[in-house]
Amino acid sequence: IQKENLKELQRLVDKLHPADIADLLESLPLEDRLLVWGLVRPEYDGDVLLEASDAIRETLITDMGAHELVAAAEQLDADEIADLAPDLPQDVMEDVFRSLPIAEREQLRAAMSYPEDAVGALMDFDVITVRENVRLEVVLRYLRRLEELPDHTDQLFVVDRNEHLKGVLLINKILVSDPEMLVADVMTKEMITLHPDDKAQDAAHAFERYDLVSASIIDHDKKLLGRVTVNTVIDFIQEKAEYDALNLAGLREEEDLFAPVLRSVRNRWVWLAINLVTAFIASRVIGLFEDSIEKLVALAALMPIIAGIGGNSGNQTITMIVRALALEQIKAGSAWKLIGKEIGVSVVNGLIWGGVVGLFTFAIYQNVELGLVMMLAMLLNLLLAALLGVLIPLTLRKLGRDPALGSSVMITAVTDSGGFFIFLSLATLFLL
Amino acid sequence: IQKENLKELQRLVDKLHPADIADLLESLPLEDRLLVWGLVRPEYDGDVLLEASDAIRETLITDMGAHELVAAAEQLDADEIADLAPDLPQDVMEDVFRSLPIAEREQLRAAMSYPEDAVGALMDFDVITVRENVRLEVVLRYLRRLEELPDHTDQLFVVDRNEHLKGVLLINKILVSDPEMLVADVMTKEMITLHPDDKAQDAAHAFERYDLVSASIIDHDKKLLGRVTVNTVIDFIQEKAEYDALNLAGLREEEDLFAPVLRSVRNRWVWLAINLVTAFIASRVIGLFEDSIEKLVALAALMPIIAGIGGNSGNQTITMIVRALALEQIKAGSAWKLIGKEIGVSVVNGLIWGGVVGLFTFAIYQNVELGLVMMLAMLLNLLLAALLGVLIPLTLRKLGRDPALGSSVMITAVTDSGGFFIFLSLATLFLL
Repeated sequence: IQKENLKELQRLVDKLHPADIADLLESLPLEDRLLVWGLVRPEYDGDVLLEASDAIRETLITDMGAHELVAAAEQLDADEIADLAPDLPQDVMEDVFRSLPIAEREQLRAAMSYPEDAVGALMDFDVITVRENVRLEVVLRYLRRLEELPDHTDQLFVVDRNEHLKGVLLINKILVSDPEMLVADVMTKEMITLHPDDKAQDAAHAFERYDLVSASIIDHDKKLLGRVTVNTVIDFIQEKAEYDALNLAGLREEEDLFAPVLRSVRNRWVWLAINLVTAFIASRVIGLFEDSIEKLVALAALMPIIAGIGGNSGNQTITMIVRALALEQIKAGSAWKLIGKEIGVSVVNGLIWGGVVGLFTFAIYQNVELGLVMMLAMLLNLLLAALLGVLIPLTLRKLGRDPALGSSVMITAVTDSGGFFIFLSLATLFLL
Repeated sequence: IQKENLKELQRLVDKLHPADIADLLESLPLEDRLLVWGLVRPEYDGDVLLEASDAIRETLITDMGAHELVAAAEQLDADEIADLAPDLPQDVMEDVFRSLPIAEREQLRAAMSYPEDAVGALMDFDVITVRENVRLEVVLRYLRRLEELPDHTDQLFVVDRNEHLKGVLLINKILVSDPEMLVADVMTKEMITLHPDDKAQDAAHAFERYDLVSASIIDHDKKLLGRVTVNTVIDFIQEKAEYDALNLAGLREEEDLFAPVLRSVRNRWVWLAINLVTAFIASRVIGLFEDSIEKLVALAALMPIIAGIGGNSGNQTITMIVRALALEQIKAGSAWKLIGKEIGVSVVNGLIWGGVVGLFTFAIYQNVELGLVMMLAMLLNLLLAALLGVLIPLTLRKLGRDPALGSSVMITAVTDSGGFFIFLSLATLFLL
């Protein structure tokens, strides 16, 4: 029966697209995953590795011999090998490198030289170039001889003899134009060009805004280096969104769902440690007021309300500001305007929610002064949250850091410790 | 001087792409925004409205007369008008509708009939169809007569006389094939087809996996209805990522950076109210133990540590599970395996961080039993976080809800109230 099932499974795997195989592998516990991995057609190995997430890819590579890995890598283009390179053993990479034709070696070296968040890392070298002084008819004959065009070829690149980019010839334009016309008369000179050192994020914005399928990459002399295609951009956008989401939750990277326990612990410990430090600080702030709490124990039950709502409100502000920074919507002059607005919001919220909290406190403890202190503390903590909710991301940006990273932890630390301090010191001043 | 500046500004605006104008408008306070909006060429009005975010679009539409709005809408395709429709006044929509040719009226009605998260809402009607029994040469002549092809035309759709989809003819295939060949011999029958009722999320996955530029939409009889193109998919992915990020922070929708204070308050109040309720509950849990806190006031200073780290750890688990659910990686059988793994992680974390917290407590309060109670409470709260971090999203999914929505608030509520309860009751049992 085992054998029957295996045959069935083999048939199933044979019918799947590499991307679907990668997905299937991610959803399987390690043992089953390696069983299925063994059934994948060797010619798909490279593509599946490419499509799999980092954590899964590692488990697959560990399972493969050096020979298999070299064979898998050789099926891929230079830019794709560059994506795999960080995960491949040194000796495998050397073998792969030696097996490549000279031109591709150059491409691989170029692709590996760019940082992960640069346009160069998204570059694809599969471009078709034409000269501007030929007729479309000649271009058509040339294309026919190629037998197949690279994926996502929506335009050909018009270059001079020094490979300098002169314009682009849209495929759709070729189809609707008279074959007797010259490339120079049909090509477009208005085009989006990227530099390999541009931020990948900016390329993604350009694709989104201008609805591109591909865009050229040129160096500072306008020499054509390669192109970026929309499928790579989609992958980049998805990975970026995922990375942000994971980071917000305090996970260092995406995790194999079935990773061994100790691996998961390693992926998660940094943020827990940071949070522990901020929790210790908050705890010591409360410790300062132990005398007050001993005299009026209701303070202990009420203080988390002030800290909690402050944290929430601060995170709302931070999210707004981080989004606006990512979209470059904040100009130098508008910081004060934004702080003004957020302070306005927190005054209104402070009065509304402070009032609710004050009434709640009065209802439970029958103590008017305690209710008023709650209301005032809430208002002040929301003001603190608003002010730092704007200032933390703006400062991180000014220091050249990613404002999305860590600003949520910081604001929560401030509104916790700050909230406890504000509430307990007001209570000590007015109630005891 | 004012006039000089206006002229300068007019020149600048005239050079911008509609998407860039929309971005510029978003970054300006209301008064300046309306000034620039007045300078935009009328023929760009429709595109700018389309590119602007909901909050900004509203401020622009409020500023326009009915005539201007009708004129702007008339420049757009039916599927684009459908995107604007919810924001347009009723009488404007009626005028627009009446001004459309019959065929486009049908398309507009169709486009407006699908829910926002369905493939139908992404549909574009600009398709080129050909018959399978003609030569490529004839197709080429036909295309040449069109003078311009719709954007993102990477394939033509091959249909029979009843508009039933038979296959697709890739543009790149036309270019490299002999013009004497028949469409039937060059077309591909293996193709991705979508249904208008499919989830837009699934279409996005398909584009990402199979590197598509466009895909056909057919009804259940295989009749061709329209297509989806990659630019729409990118917009969808971006909007989804943004929506998720805003929701996580407790913002109902994206906010105009310069919105009036009361508008922002309205956008943010729901989550603050929900959090206030959970904070009240946590406060009452502490209230149950006021006698214990009175006797040992250190408890008040220590309890936020237990609650805080529990919340962090629970959010890590939830993020993992929500991501895996979104990628359909969790099969029926794996829930128990996942719970087992997360419990393993929290036992290890509980022992490590519980130990650290216990030592910290001992160092400050010189009380061994208190340190042990802290350690045990930490361990138990992390276990609670792990268990519910898996169960909450799985349950939401089973109930047919989006597991990304609200699960973070729920886990925090559980680890706060639960953490206070576990710690304070252990302390009452063992220390007093």
